[in-house]
Order: sequence, then C-alpha cells, then structure tokens
Amino acid sequence: MNAEIIAIGSELLTPFRQDTNSLFLTEQLNRLGVEVSFKTIVGDRRPDLINVARIALSRADVVIFMGGLGPTEDDLTRECVAETLGRPLKRHARIVEDLRARFAARGWKMAENNERQGDVIDGADALDNKRGSAPGQFLHIDDQYGHAIIVLLPGPPHELRGMFEEHVFERLKRLVPAQHIATRELKIGMIGESMVDKRAAPIYKAAQGVETTILAGTPGEVQLHLRAQASSFEEAQKRVDALATLLEDEFEDAIFATKGESMEQIVGYYLGMREKTLAVAESCTGGMLAARITSVPGSSRYFLGGAVVYENSVKTALAGVPPLLIAEHGAVSSQVAAALAEGIRNSCKSSFGIGITGVAGPAGGSDEKPVGLVFHALADGSHTEVIERTFPGDRDRIRHWATQQALDMVRRKLM
Amino acid sequence: MNAEIIAIGSELLTPFRQDTNSLFLTEQLNRLGVEVSFKTIVGDRRPDLINVARIALSRADVVIFMGGLGPTEDDLTRECVAETLGRPLKRHARIVEDLRARFAARGWKMAENNERQGDVIDGADALDNKRGSAPGQFLHIDDQYGHAIIVLLPGPPHELRGMFEEHVFERLKRLVPAQHIATRELKIGMIGESMVDKRAAPIYKAAQGVETTILAGTPGEVQLHLRAQASSFEEAQKRVDALATLLEDEFEDAIFATKGESMEQIVGYYLGMREKTLAVAESCTGGMLAARITSVPGSSRYFLGGAVVYENSVKTALAGVPPLLIAEHGAVSSQVAAALAEGIRNSCKSSFGIGITGVAGPAGGSDEKPVGLVFHALADGSHTEVIERTFPGDRDRIRHWATQQALDMVRRKLM
Repeated sequence: MNAEIIAIGSELLTPFRQDTNSLFLTEQLNRLGVEVSFKTIVGDRRPDLINVARIALSRADVVIFMGGLGPTEDDLTRECVAETLGRPLKRHARIVEDLRARFAARGWKMAENNERQGDVIDGADALDNKRGSAPGQFLHIDDQYGHAIIVLLPGPPHELRGMFEEHVFERLKRLVPAQHIATRELKIGMIGESMVDKRAAPIYKAAQGVETTILAGTPGEVQLHLRAQASSFEEAQKRVDALATLLEDEFEDAIFATKGESMEQIVGYYLGMREKTLAVAESCTGGMLAARITSVPGSSRYFLGGAVVYENSVKTALAGVPPLLIAEHGAVSSQVAAALAEGIRNSCKSSFGIGITGVAGPAGGSDEKPVGLVFHALADGSHTEVIERTFPGDRDRIRHWATQQALDMVRRKLM
Repeated sequence: MNAEIIAIGSELLTPFRQDTNSLFLTEQLNRLGVEVSFKTIVGDRRPDLINVARIALSRADVVIFMGGLGPTEDDLTRECVAETLGRPLKRHARIVEDLRARFAARGWKMAENNERQGDVIDGADALDNKRGSAPGQFLHIDDQYGHAIIVLLPGPPHELRGMFEEHVFERLKRLVPAQHIATRELKIGMIGESMVDKRAAPIYKAAQGVETTILAGTPGEVQLHLRAQASSFEEAQKRVDALATLLEDEFEDAIFATKGESMEQIVGYYLGMREKTLAVAESCTGGMLAARITSVPGSSRYFLGGAVVYENSVKTALAGVPPLLIAEHGAVSSQVAAALAEGIRNSCKSSFGIGITGVAGPAGGSDEKPVGLVFHALADGSHTEVIERTFPGDRDRIRHWATQQALDMVRRKLM
C-alpha cells in the first residue's frame, strides 16, 4: 500500500515555515509497511485544496491531511475534503459541548467560530484531541475513488503525534496487510558524519536485507538507522540485531545509544543506576546544558541544580571561583572550567560537578581564544578532568556541541 | 504568477531527510513577485514523476524541478519532463566534452553513464554548473500546457543556489511581470490563537490587498504574517504598514514584536536600552529560560547569570531561599517564587531578578498543585510581582509557556 501526506497551510508556502510532521508520519507508516509515494504542500485556498485532495485520492491508498482543522476561516480542510468526496458535513453536538466545556474550564466564553470544529464528514470517526481543540477524522471509503483510507489530523506537532499514536495507528493496522518490520537506531557521539560513514559503510553494505541510513543529528551526534522487513518479526529483528552488533564492535564506546535514546536520557539512566547526583556551572552554554538534562521526566532524582555564570562576579558568587584565578588565566581557561566544576559540586553537594566556559560567538573571539573554543570540566571530588575543544559552526551549534561533550564526559565516567 | 516546486528523490520520502531547498527558492520567487502555490515531493519512479510533472504544468505558471539530474539510473528528471512535454532529448556534445575534461582534470576516466548528463530537452537552455557535474535546464514553452516556464535544477543545495543566482534569477525576471512585495510579522504574547483570530479577523478582512496568515508559534506566541503585492514597493509597504498599525491599536501591548523578533530578542533590546541587568532562578524550567536569553548574541551585556534550583537545598545555597519558607509554603508557591527572584537578584547584583517554580510533570502533580501550575516572580529591589498560571500541554510545552510568561513580565516592566 502507498500513502500521500498533504500538509495544509499558506505559511508552509513561505520561506519561513516547513512541514516537519511528515517525517514522524512517514516513520509510523513505514512501521506498518506503508510506503509514502508523494508529499504535497498546499495553501489555505479552497480550489487548490480540492485540486490536491482529488489528485491524492486518485493515486494513493492512504491519504493523510494535516492542518486546517482549527476554528478560523482559513481552516478549510473539513469542507474541502467533504466536497471532494461529495459527502455532507454533520455537526456533532457532543464535540461542540466538549469544546464549550474546555473553554469554560479556563473561565473563557467560547467564540462561535469554534463550533465549526464539530463538523465531521459523513461516515467518518471523529478522533478525540486531548492536547488541543480540533478533533481529527478517520474515514475508510470504497466509492468512485476506489478503496481509500482518509485521515484528517491537526497541524500542531504535539497534537498530531498524540492523536496518531492514540487513535490512528491501531485503526490503520487493522486495515493494512500485515508486514513485519524491525528497526534499530544507533547513536554515535563526538565523531564526524563522514568519518562514521567511512567506517560504517563497508559493514552495512555487506549486510543482507537491512536498509541503513546515516544521518547527522544535533551537533556531536550521528545516527545509524537500521531497518529490515521480513515475513516474521523474529527474522526482521534478527537481521537488524546482527548488523547492530557488527557496528557496535566497530565503534565500541563511541556508541552511546542503541535504541534511539537521547544523550541526556542515557546520562540520566547511568546516574540513576549508580545512585549519583549531578550539578552544573555553565558560562557559554548559558543554561542549555541544564535545560537538556531537565528535559527528561524524573531528572530531579539525580540532577540537583546549577548555575549560569555569565558575569565574572557571578562565577564567584554562585560557583566560588576565586577572582584571582579569573584575572590570571582569563574566564575562558582550563583552570576556570575546573574551578566551576569543583565549585558547583561543593555548592550543590552533588557527586559530580560539570563546568563549561568558552567562546560561543559571534563576537568575543581572539587569535589566542577563537570563537568555538570551549573548556569542559568534570569533577568527582578527588579528580577533575578537563577537555578542550574548538567547535565549528555558529553560536547555536557551538553551544550544542559543548553540552554534548560535557554529557559525554559524564557518560564515559559512569560506563 | 504562481509556481510549483517539485523535489525529486526517494530519500526525501524517508523519515530522515527533508527538502530544504524549497525555502530558498520560495524566497527568491517571492522577491520576483511569484507566489508558490504548491510544493510536491516525489521519489525516483518514472510513472510517479510523469504524473507529478503533468499535474504541475496544468496548475502552475512556473514549474521548478529539483534533483534527479545526476548520472545514475535513478536520475530520471530529464527523461520524464521531456516525455511529459512530448519533446525529444538532444545530447549536447559540448556538455559531454566538458564533463570528460572535468574527470580528466582529476585523473579519472569518465564512466559512460555520465554522458546522459549532456541530454537537454529540445528548446531548453543548458545551465552551466560550476559546483558539480549536472547542468541545469531552462525552458519557456507555449503549447498544449499554455504559457509555462520550466526549470530543472540539481539537488545539492550549494549547486542549486549557485545556479539559481547565476542563471535563473535574471532569466525569470525578464519573463515575469514586475511586482513588488512587502511583508510584516507581528507577534502577540500570552493570548490564545482563537482569541487572537476573533479580534484580528474583522480588521484584516477589511484591509485591502493584504494577505494575512495567523500562526501559533511556540507556546505563548501567536504570529500574524502580513503580505502585500503592488506595482511599486512603496505602495506594497504602505499597505502592510497601514494594516499593522490597525492591529497594533487592537492588541496594544500584547504585541511584543512588529518585525518578527523573538521574545528574548525584544527583552534583550529593552534591557540594553534602559541599561538594566537581569538574573534568573529557575526550578521547573531547569535552565530553559537562561538558555533562551543567552541564545541572543551579545546577551552578556545585560544577562549576568542565574541558578537552576531543582533540589530544595540548592534553592537555599544559590538563591538564598530560607528553608523555613519552603517548609511552610512548599517549593511550588508564590512565596518561594518571590524569594527566588529576590535572592538571585541579590546574589548576582542585577537590576531585576526572576524566580520560577512550578510542576512541569508528567509526575509530581496533586489536586492542590496540579501539573502545569507555575509561579513566576519579578523583583526590582523595591517591589516583587508574582503571576500564577496553570498551563496546558506536556512537560516541554509547560516549560516553554513558563519561560514565555517570565520574559513577558520583564518586557511589560520595561515598556
């Protein structure tokens, strides 16, 4: 079976916005054995939307529409799909009541235009939206367009993902011929993409029946996606696992995740397992490291806190760095990184302390200390390790590289 | 005039890769006054490619194909466009010679399949590719598809950009009626999308000749994109500015940006202008607020630092919150938020201090203090303001909402 994914919204036809939902949907559809043959992006114009809907129904078995389900006059997806199919829209009183209750719970009166969100194409299931107001729709037709599955999903990524996982995946699974697909996602830290490819390619090219994709993730992370399709799940799993083992032998401890986990999840996992705690003092990363660590639910079990130490006096006030040390070596130095790690460990009474100081740019670089230079320190109470790196890229990439390097130091310490 | 952009390549239909060239092309086409009406992504399959080419020629004045111009058997764009148009391909001896010379210069012998790159659609101009091997093509037709401009470009972004700027922009400019486009982007803080639409719609609908798109940004941000097209740039600018003024009258100080700036840029701009400094103490946002503030280059001029205070003892150690206050009111309380703001302001000696404490979830909520409850405090030395909000969504969205609310408090204070 094949699918077409249609992203709707005039903003997606500007230079500023891009559909990213289709990547998630493609992954989910592939898991079910459905290939994506076309992706289309169209604006909020009635004739264009109807044109696109008609074409998709003529060439795909599964057609997924994303966006245009909100309450505004620009939100035309319901009407246009209904018109294309020659089916009426019916307003569901229960959905309208739920919307009204949702507004009332926040002490707001619902604007009348919101009622349009209760319009459901005749014959479709309305899909409950826990994360937003617009319900989705699921419709299985067998008419002038032949056999087709039509899904309408909201555009905001968190609403779309939640709704797909809760309501669409199982419905599709019942309608799609059984396929068995196994996947693995290995993540490699702090090695460049071309170097990973050079070492991995001879291995994955020799593997039978496993599709491999190499992908640069955020800075300091390269992903190897393995995918096998077979007549039984066990066979598919065996194939991806065999290749994963060969790749693990090649990259050894540079592989930090074998099932797609993030670096901050892995570090949290090790800290929890070893019953250790962590505190951080960041200068150039400005809170990004703490934000990554605390993005993991439950991180309060092992993360005690930290300091963002932009101003030199704050390095002293919050992380106890002696002013003379800064005066002697400069704020961006191996010595200050070590003092930050040790100082924050003392202030927070944690097992480990991390210190980061560097030049994120675009300004502030010099011949001696160029943009991209970062010192990362890890203190455990008896020993403090410092790693100096010079990272490429812009401010955002340099900051991301630095947080990855610091997390990788904790991971290697605990492995 | 309208355009369709077609990205060709089976890798663009996997979960791992995305077309980004179309953002560049859209910007360039918009500059010429050409609207993009459709974007299509299709794999390396002959019937699919012909299907897509035929549809695009039926609905767009300018059709740009990207990718599929290389030497391999997967590279089908030339053949399929020629077949769609019913025109023959002609092999250009000069291009083949150039390719051969290119290979020879590197000491390689050219594989025969490379000669296909010299095939040019009858009537098209071949476009020289300085950065790679595959030439592009430019064709202006007036036949069964009516008047149309067809452009074939290579897929690698640096080849595509260079070729567009050197060979395509001027050719299009000569063929496209002169148009001038002006845009504005207003951003509104801490008001829901449907409420913004309800208040904005009567205004932008009454405006002549300005297209308006409403878009939900990150939590706590709604964007209004205005766009006008006119025969002179001044006229286009006058129209978007007039509408922007009416919208500014309606939303007053809820509008935080009028030229697309981010909330953290605006807050930084005000702090710099008023020569004030800021420090933050974050619990549930875990460094995300500091990371947003420090994502702005030059933020070290007004941001001194902050504390991430997960563990209660760290609230005391880094932000001077009295342990008794936490014992009495709980860590998530108005009192602790205020103490964090005042404490971090004292520790960092800044003009303003922000304190945030709340329940980001998914665990840790109670009937009295549910997931999503956040207290935001702003201290200026003489007065401390606290705002209590209960935000919807998952951990990531709640954390984002809270940072937006805190930044908005600083903005309103400084306005």
